[in-house]
Amino acid sequence: MQLGMIGLGRMGANMVRRLMRAGHDCVVYDVSEEAVAALEAEGATGARTLDEFAAKLTKPRATIIMVPAAVVDVTLAGLTPHFEPGDVIIDGGNSYYRDDIRRSEELAAGGLEYMDMGTSGGTHGLERGYCLMIGGPDDAFARLEPVFEALAPGVGEAPPTPGRDKPGSTAEKGYLHCGKVGAGHFVKMVHNGIEYGLMAAYAEGFNILKHANIGRTSREADAETAPLGDPHFYDYDIDLGEVAELWRRGSVVGSWLLDLTAVSYLDDPNLDAFTGSVSDSGEGRWTAVAAIEEGVPAPVLNAALFERFASQGADEHANRVLNAMRFQFGGHHVKPSA
Amino acid sequence: MQLGMIGLGRMGANMVRRLMRAGHDCVVYDVSEEAVAALEAEGATGARTLDEFAAKLTKPRATIIMVPAAVVDVTLAGLTPHFEPGDVIIDGGNSYYRDDIRRSEELAAGGLEYMDMGTSGGTHGLERGYCLMIGGPDDAFARLEPVFEALAPGVGEAPPTPGRDKPGSTAEKGYLHCGKVGAGHFVKMVHNGIEYGLMAAYAEGFNILKHANIGRTSREADAETAPLGDPHFYDYDIDLGEVAELWRRGSVVGSWLLDLTAVSYLDDPNLDAFTGSVSDSGEGRWTAVAAIEEGVPAPVLNAALFERFASQGADEHANRVLNAMRFQFGGHHVKPSA
Amino acid sequence: MQLGMIGLGRMGANMVRRLMRAGHDCVVYDVSEEAVAALEAEGATGARTLDEFAAKLTKPRATIIMVPAAVVDVTLAGLTPHFEPGDVIIDGGNSYYRDDIRRSEELAAGGLEYMDMGTSGGTHGLERGYCLMIGGPDDAFARLEPVFEALAPGVGEAPPTPGRDKPGSTAEKGYLHCGKVGAGHFVKMVHNGIEYGLMAAYAEGFNILKHANIGRTSREADAETAPLGDPHFYDYDIDLGEVAELWRRGSVVGSWLLDLTAVSYLDDPNLDAFTGSVSDSGEGRWTAVAAIEEGVPAPVLNAALFERFASQGADEHANRVLNAMRFQFGGHHVKPSA
Amino acid sequence: MQLGMIGLGRMGANMVRRLMRAGHDCVVYDVSEEAVAALEAEGATGARTLDEFAAKLTKPRATIIMVPAAVVDVTLAGLTPHFEPGDVIIDGGNSYYRDDIRRSEELAAGGLEYMDMGTSGGTHGLERGYCLMIGGPDDAFARLEPVFEALAPGVGEAPPTPGRDKPGSTAEKGYLHCGKVGAGHFVKMVHNGIEYGLMAAYAEGFNILKHANIGRTSREADAETAPLGDPHFYDYDIDLGEVAELWRRGSVVGSWLLDLTAVSYLDDPNLDAFTGSVSDSGEGRWTAVAAIEEGVPAPVLNAALFERFASQGADEHANRVLNAMRFQFGGHHVKPSA
Repeated sequence: MQLGMIGLGRMGANMVRRLMRAGHDCVVYDVSEEAVAALEAEGATGARTLDEFAAKLTKPRATIIMVPAAVVDVTLAGLTPHFEPGDVIIDGGNSYYRDDIRRSEELAAGGLEYMDMGTSGGTHGLERGYCLMIGGPDDAFARLEPVFEALAPGVGEAPPTPGRDKPGSTAEKGYLHCGKVGAGHFVKMVHNGIEYGLMAAYAEGFNILKHANIGRTSREADAETAPLGDPHFYDYDIDLGEVAELWRRGSVVGSWLLDLTAVSYLDDPNLDAFTGSVSDSGEGRWTAVAAIEEGVPAPVLNAALFERFASQGADEHANRVLNAMRFQFGGHHVKPSA
Repeated sequence: MQLGMIGLGRMGANMVRRLMRAGHDCVVYDVSEEAVAALEAEGATGARTLDEFAAKLTKPRATIIMVPAAVVDVTLAGLTPHFEPGDVIIDGGNSYYRDDIRRSEELAAGGLEYMDMGTSGGTHGLERGYCLMIGGPDDAFARLEPVFEALAPGVGEAPPTPGRDKPGSTAEKGYLHCGKVGAGHFVKMVHNGIEYGLMAAYAEGFNILKHANIGRTSREADAETAPLGDPHFYDYDIDLGEVAELWRRGSVVGSWLLDLTAVSYLDDPNLDAFTGSVSDSGEGRWTAVAAIEEGVPAPVLNAALFERFASQGADEHANRVLNAMRFQFGGHHVKPSA
Repeated sequence: MQLGMIGLGRMGANMVRRLMRAGHDCVVYDVSEEAVAALEAEGATGARTLDEFAAKLTKPRATIIMVPAAVVDVTLAGLTPHFEPGDVIIDGGNSYYRDDIRRSEELAAGGLEYMDMGTSGGTHGLERGYCLMIGGPDDAFARLEPVFEALAPGVGEAPPTPGRDKPGSTAEKGYLHCGKVGAGHFVKMVHNGIEYGLMAAYAEGFNILKHANIGRTSREADAETAPLGDPHFYDYDIDLGEVAELWRRGSVVGSWLLDLTAVSYLDDPNLDAFTGSVSDSGEGRWTAVAAIEEGVPAPVLNAALFERFASQGADEHANRVLNAMRFQFGGHHVKPSA
Repeated sequence: MQLGMIGLGRMGANMVRRLMRAGHDCVVYDVSEEAVAALEAEGATGARTLDEFAAKLTKPRATIIMVPAAVVDVTLAGLTPHFEPGDVIIDGGNSYYRDDIRRSEELAAGGLEYMDMGTSGGTHGLERGYCLMIGGPDDAFARLEPVFEALAPGVGEAPPTPGRDKPGSTAEKGYLHCGKVGAGHFVKMVHNGIEYGLMAAYAEGFNILKHANIGRTSREADAETAPLGDPHFYDYDIDLGEVAELWRRGSVVGSWLLDLTAVSYLDDPNLDAFTGSVSDSGEGRWTAVAAIEEGVPAPVLNAALFERFASQGADEHANRVLNAMRFQFGGHHVKPSA
């Protein structure tokens, strides 16, 4: 079937490619003409304006939007005047599910249908397929299911779950209608919250392994710092890359993220190409907020988020407060900032 | 080659089976005569006493011990009088690596060699193979490598890491000589610490999904509890089992633990078979201690550990202190314990 | 001067008393006629309806509202028809500062002024005075300053901060105009967030002291649980009440909350009167959300909040997920519920 | 009575002064001759060698040691040859309580008595008195009680706990015999663990207040970072110093640490004199280890410790792992390290 795609960045462009490989027709638009031209060369129908984009789509129109969360509203504002009742717009980016609810109501006023589609897979999605978490009306889901099926990995991408016999279920193919509008991005939000926790678990573990030789570093004895009780217990040089590779087979901690970690250590054993400042996107924050509002504890997911904040230096003032207190009650020698 | 196995529980018995499948000869001992008889019936050489066990092993002897961490020392005390210089004992259980160092020194006094072998794989190891993290002397490792190779999953159990070309490395086969004595259990310890973090990340995430309908539950308005600001944002019924299945394909959070979670939800959608009290074993604790002694932050791994402590009720007195304070400063109505 | 008070619960009634002691006239209203009558007997002017309440207040009217956060809006809806331009309403309860901003805008449409006043002090406020964190317009603050000053503790309630010489500042008297509308409840929100952290720090510490004798409890040795390495290091019986009393003098951890803890242990050494389920109110949650939205780490404040959630049993499903996983990969014997 | 003091740093010298003020005689020793001379000038009896020190003490001797934890053993090794059975040595520093147990046994072999005395009060102790947490034999405690009483703050330093009537208790005077050897430092350890948590609670809270104006900072919209949902909710300029002063009176969060925070902000409103790297000493670590070994959750105390580790940069490798993963799965643009 035919589908539009607005936003041809890392994600959008590859999704178009995967759709075309499956035999679907794609009409594509991006603010970058280069990005449009690149996909035209691969067989997509390009559009230079949203007007042209809408004109090239067969009615009732259907399009995915793959743009940064911050520009979804402005994209919708530009697009919707060219769309008509019965058309459906699918936000495949990383929008906050609450914005989905609002947008769905706004678009409904003009007769447009809105779906939210949380999309996981990153740059590997072209080959592996995209895991799709979908929210919105039943009829729109049914109409667009061929698109979701083409984007999704397919049942063969993982071994079957023993005992599973749910022929009608799409989850095994890698896409799922999670519920009414917002449900897709809600599930994707939590997915990313979990992702933060998983990533941090590995990162902390490898950091502990890396410091397994700290017993060989003499710690200066002063009034503030206690000596390491048993330095001979920290006298190991662990090859982090070999451990990452090792754990990929047979261990309880095997995962795709571990596979990627093994690649990273192979390419760059000390990870010198990377800084220690880690960005966070919205989902990790929103997951933490959801836990708080639901009143359920999520200390692991939250700790993972706060580690990123600290890596960005946002703990600076708090730490100064600690040093100020220590100076006040203990006269602790605190090095003045340069 | 020939190998002894002491301890024929869940892990030890299957390791014997996997070794025999690979053509190795196994002499087996357990305090349970039934366990010994069962493996004899499958082709192993059984021993009813440690004396007999030692006698049936060809010199220089080699044996794995797979017993609870708490009884390793008593097992060694019973065994070593029957062993001779040049024999090697491999602790394949979940010992604290510091005990490895001590035991290695104790056994060295009698000319015995000691190796530590962290073993991951659980009850699935018979089929999947066991991921082995090994510490100890080079020569002993070299001598016993056929055993490790037979127990390990083998290179085919995971797709190759792109760009990897390390023919001499054993990590790809699923076993690794991590360093001198203790290194194997050190790496296994951190492995389990990571496991705690990964498990908690999923558990917290699914818990947030489960409570996504909390907006439909009316919260009583009283002086202590604020109303949920936007109840309509928590109006979803998420099918947790379908989500677990979904994420197994194409998503960033795919892992073996997620595969197992999908099985769990399939078998028992509300997990009614399980309580909310979660045991912890030594490794999670030791990993947290290692992070503290190394001076590296591990908030995620630690939070996962403390969640288990709380699930066991060990937060009881702390919570009473909180309620006592609240009563003192706020006169908060606190229900007296029955 | 004259002031109205709506809401005569624990907080409101004592605030009226403190105002009357300082010579102010109070017009009081509550949905409970008893509560009104009680204060009438002490000299306040009672009102049985909001109409009567408004009629008894001299124009321009000024009133404090001390009601649960959940019923502020309905209270305002009942009150504002009886108020006129130039009147000022002060929300002294525990409202979310975002609601202040909204309400301020809503009331401004009718010419009413709105202030938010975060109030700390609890049931001790009558004697100690109330610490007031105030947001709203400058002129309203100036007009009502005598009221704030009467409610606040006064400069003598704490020793002077060495070197402080800010005669114009009100902070030393115990009330502060923190900024425009919402600023008062914002500061109060963070105040309560800190309170959660402080309380948890004490509670966790006393819990560790309570378990200092755990070495005397034999831990069963099984495959899952490692034995306590050095039981003789946990062989102390610490008198928690005496320690609480001790720390009140000369130590770094002295505080009012510790004073209250000492009272609690004195009255009830094992805190038998209290359960282990701890309520949370809005501020702790909102503080955590603020940290997340600001992108600053607050792991301590957040951990304190999540401990309360767990104490309420909200970690139940997450823990079942953990046990389900453990069963799947390890065959860990998990006691079935019931 | 007469008492020796070894170690005349910040703590030891002032303790001598406080003892002399109370009429006790002090024999003092330090590796710094200047430090000895300074106290001689104030009336203490100085000693240039440990031999001389022992000679000037009346038998049975009693001395406090106030030296860094790392040099206690070497100090004891130098001292004990000059001491005789019946003499008592009190470690008033920040030793690990496990070292107390070991040292007590070592000294007992020579007939010497050993006590551990956790000492809180910092540089303010000279005036406020020192809060003393004492472990060791009953007879030694009884013999030295006049010394403890002189060092301690005395009953007048805090208002009485309502209802308290325990004339025999010393806790009200600010010193307590907590139990057998090690109990004093155990309680002091937890005291400092609590201190970490309290400090972090304030620090995080003030950091949140400081960032209350973050809505005015435009956040760049890109694919990775979600825009701040409601920037107008973060539009406050909070005067942190005034808030610290405010909370000192009538609020629930009043404490000595808050008093010190108010001093800090008064002296240096932006805390420019301080860096963001916070040292940790042994007690915070040991408290966390105790919680883990006891199996009780202490997420707040632990989070406070890990924040310090992160402030020291020990999270660097972990964060690089996160960025490496993000690059692998998302192609996220990660700035290369310079």
